[in-house]
Amino acid sequence: MKTDVEIAREAKLENIEKIAEGLGLSRDSLIEYGKHMAKISKETLDQCQEKEDGKLVLVTAINPTPAGEGKTTTNIGLAMALCQRGKKAITALREPSLGPVFGIKGGACGGGYAQVLPMENINLHFTGDFHAITSAHNLISASIDNHIHQGNALNIDLRKIIWKRVMDMNDRALRQIVVGLGSEKNGFPREDGFDITVASEIMAILCLSHDLMDFKEKVAKITVAYTVDDQPVTVADLKVQGAVAMLMKDALLPNLVQTIENTPAIIHGGPFANIAHGCNSLIATKTALKLADITVTEAGFGADLGAEKFLDIKCPVGGLKPDCVVLVATIRALKYNGGLAKSDLGQENIQALKDGAVNLKRHISNLKKYQLPLVVCINTFPTDTEEELETLENILKEEGLAYARSTCFAQGGQGALDLADRVLEALDKESNFKALLSEDMDLEEKLLCLAREIYGAKDVIYSDQAKKQMEKIRKEGLDHLPVCVAKTQYSFSDDPNKLGAPTGFNLTVRELIAQTGANFIVAKTGDIMTMPGLSKDPAANHMDIDKDGTITGLF
Amino acid sequence: MKTDVEIAREAKLENIEKIAEGLGLSRDSLIEYGKHMAKISKETLDQCQEKEDGKLVLVTAINPTPAGEGKTTTNIGLAMALCQRGKKAITALREPSLGPVFGIKGGACGGGYAQVLPMENINLHFTGDFHAITSAHNLISASIDNHIHQGNALNIDLRKIIWKRVMDMNDRALRQIVVGLGSEKNGFPREDGFDITVASEIMAILCLSHDLMDFKEKVAKITVAYTVDDQPVTVADLKVQGAVAMLMKDALLPNLVQTIENTPAIIHGGPFANIAHGCNSLIATKTALKLADITVTEAGFGADLGAEKFLDIKCPVGGLKPDCVVLVATIRALKYNGGLAKSDLGQENIQALKDGAVNLKRHISNLKKYQLPLVVCINTFPTDTEEELETLENILKEEGLAYARSTCFAQGGQGALDLADRVLEALDKESNFKALLSEDMDLEEKLLCLAREIYGAKDVIYSDQAKKQMEKIRKEGLDHLPVCVAKTQYSFSDDPNKLGAPTGFNLTVRELIAQTGANFIVAKTGDIMTMPGLSKDPAANHMDIDKDGTITGLF
Repeated sequence: MKTDVEIAREAKLENIEKIAEGLGLSRDSLIEYGKHMAKISKETLDQCQEKEDGKLVLVTAINPTPAGEGKTTTNIGLAMALCQRGKKAITALREPSLGPVFGIKGGACGGGYAQVLPMENINLHFTGDFHAITSAHNLISASIDNHIHQGNALNIDLRKIIWKRVMDMNDRALRQIVVGLGSEKNGFPREDGFDITVASEIMAILCLSHDLMDFKEKVAKITVAYTVDDQPVTVADLKVQGAVAMLMKDALLPNLVQTIENTPAIIHGGPFANIAHGCNSLIATKTALKLADITVTEAGFGADLGAEKFLDIKCPVGGLKPDCVVLVATIRALKYNGGLAKSDLGQENIQALKDGAVNLKRHISNLKKYQLPLVVCINTFPTDTEEELETLENILKEEGLAYARSTCFAQGGQGALDLADRVLEALDKESNFKALLSEDMDLEEKLLCLAREIYGAKDVIYSDQAKKQMEKIRKEGLDHLPVCVAKTQYSFSDDPNKLGAPTGFNLTVRELIAQTGANFIVAKTGDIMTMPGLSKDPAANHMDIDKDGTITGLF
Repeated sequence: MKTDVEIAREAKLENIEKIAEGLGLSRDSLIEYGKHMAKISKETLDQCQEKEDGKLVLVTAINPTPAGEGKTTTNIGLAMALCQRGKKAITALREPSLGPVFGIKGGACGGGYAQVLPMENINLHFTGDFHAITSAHNLISASIDNHIHQGNALNIDLRKIIWKRVMDMNDRALRQIVVGLGSEKNGFPREDGFDITVASEIMAILCLSHDLMDFKEKVAKITVAYTVDDQPVTVADLKVQGAVAMLMKDALLPNLVQTIENTPAIIHGGPFANIAHGCNSLIATKTALKLADITVTEAGFGADLGAEKFLDIKCPVGGLKPDCVVLVATIRALKYNGGLAKSDLGQENIQALKDGAVNLKRHISNLKKYQLPLVVCINTFPTDTEEELETLENILKEEGLAYARSTCFAQGGQGALDLADRVLEALDKESNFKALLSEDMDLEEKLLCLAREIYGAKDVIYSDQAKKQMEKIRKEGLDHLPVCVAKTQYSFSDDPNKLGAPTGFNLTVRELIAQTGANFIVAKTGDIMTMPGLSKDPAANHMDIDKDGTITGLF
């Protein structure tokens, strides 16, 4: 089969004005970035408010294998199939991060015949949203050190600066650094570090804001440091929320592109799915709901992380009511959850599949708690055997669930028509969506609820550090905020080796971080890597561009 | 008078397609970035090659005061005035750097009624060129540390890595840092630092390349470090020139915008005017020459730095033959050069003006060495008195020079009509342009020639470090490369306090750096700041944006 970039290059793209036209948008509604990408203007967003919302479909997945299992591909394939069925459907995705493109991961525009295009641009600089976030974030960083250098009127404690710097690059050498060396002209030496841009709280705020003014207010509330007297120092204290908002004025507008079948795609925002909530922007989702009959969106990692945060954080903040959840499972990932080694996933193994199916069942029972119509998508791989597929289908039949196979990677929307039909049937049913976590619960209650109801844990254990932080969070009156759990994506538990559907374990909360801008508490339950590194043989070493502008080595 | 951003906001912009149309370019020739900015497509650049070149005018200046004296404003005003005279004229400028916008400098889009628009975009992210450079530069940085971390097959000496990281931010805390701390997972600890993005060698290469393939070849030749055996390590050794070129594919295309009078402006590239050559891109200049009858371009700082590098580096590399030089002088800057304190520049002082005029005379005699028609522009300020202006004009008459007053800051093109007429007269004359430095000279000869012929020095002294570096440069066979002098802009000498037209001093070369990608040798003659800092009361603290997207505090 052809590579993604080859398939992308052979695709015939429509002018983005034509795509917009299909959504009832004129050229004037757009800020065009070349012929195939555009931002939807602020005026258009304002005008849309009066329209009725379409239906909202969330695509999530079982616990993935380290290789990823095609959730984005399924999302794109489903939206294309819905369009083939005559529906006005939009796929609403997250923007890829530039850094990992040069590592081992490659791009994040779907794959095969279920891609969003132009993938060369979307995977690289796109419309500059992430560059704007990098600039905005680092302006705050520079303002902190400049404030201290210029006399430190706010009495910031050099040891308690929690706002790091960011770069959209896989660069492990920047994880832990010392800045301000050399001489008094260079400020005060202190410990610091860089996160990757997608891990910035600015990114999380962009994705949870209703509009630019809401964004600016949230940015103003970010806690960047503590004073010598242990009082929080915010962006408002540094007086740069206006400059940050100015830098982000265009980045707040959703991006319109197209799928390989020329159906509309909105791609906007891309917060880290572990330390942040991992969903595309609220502005993008709400815009898609206004423009289309059906919006197909996604959430990062497995349903225990991504869907949970979508349903318990993003939906309540945005007043969203999803109408259906598609749970993507692959034979490979289930076999991995059944204990099969990564290198053996290509071989038939019915027992491992059956053993691993407990993972799928746990996700199903979890999602039912949100009272949403559910469809399981079996994203097929060439290595899947018919017996494996039927085994899985029988399990789903026993559960009484709607399901469909998808071959959209190889066949595009055509390969997801069954899935589209099951989704359309589900959309005819009533959705009684209810978040699992309620505002009444305090932080401890929320964590216990998640641990028991979603992860299958016995109890929650707090590290000494987390206990102290809990105390501080209570004192600052923040323990009513939503909680955003940072946890391994490979297991329901906080141990990546506990596959399947573990029970009886304790969830250990190591650290609690109040993100007062994004307005949630991050509960870290393991080592969360917020700055990746490049690999031994990075993708960057195999990339090239020729004199005609033809790119190779970009996946 | 209104602020720049207020004037900009009241201006009536044409759609960029209309501006392109005036240059004979169809919509298909453009990659549009919204309604008022566009890149000119690669195909169009290729097609243009057949056209004949128009005339090339360089705008340069006397040694400036620390406040800047309106060279860009004059450039824009002159191009607008030439259009008013019925000529097809393009202003070809450098892109502003984002970092200084938040410091004290403000934007760099001209000022008053001689601006390029949309200034809010040009001053902020524009079309993302500098963000692309930041990404490309830091990909090389990450590749260096990753290479070492993964086994260091190239045997790179950790103490001899000369490629720093970059960020487009005024952030003094990043000047000198230690990276790779924490644990073996984070690589090897070593000293490092950040420059501002405009100081990147990638920027210099972008501005001196003929096309993307030339750019890629030059990037491959960048020396990033030395091995333990003191052999140069290049980007080609790291195998990332392809990825870098891929990241830069759009950044290599020139940007088309408009002046406040709806005449065309091409803004592209912006290398640091001290450690690099400080001119806009060769691609942009050559494109402008193909599209217009007259191209008005600029070079950074005073003529001893900017014009010299334009004429001795950019023109020979690009095969450019300028037809006229406009030397901008202000009463204020001449009085400053005559010894008046910055705070007193607003007061009439004929003696200081006469004393400072030696600075202007030296620039005039220098520029005559390049055998170019010369026009002096007196860029007037409201504080200039008529007696001061006449005094200066009498001096110019004595020199037998063409000159004109300009009031384009307050009056736009109308205020530069006299200047335009003098320039048109000059363009009727023959230009016998000849660079001062020839390829036959070796590095030492070139430096001595510049020191004596341009700066007025007695001799060149080399530091011990520079002597060793000279040795190495000779050994590596690089001493035939063009030289790019890094020197204070405030004086002809290497001492910012020696104003006027100093003589009898020695020029001390402290450091010689071979930039094997940009293909020149940087000769540092003083402390060159490659990462600025924010000020006590940074501009960022006074910036804001309201719900309608109206920006305040951006100058």
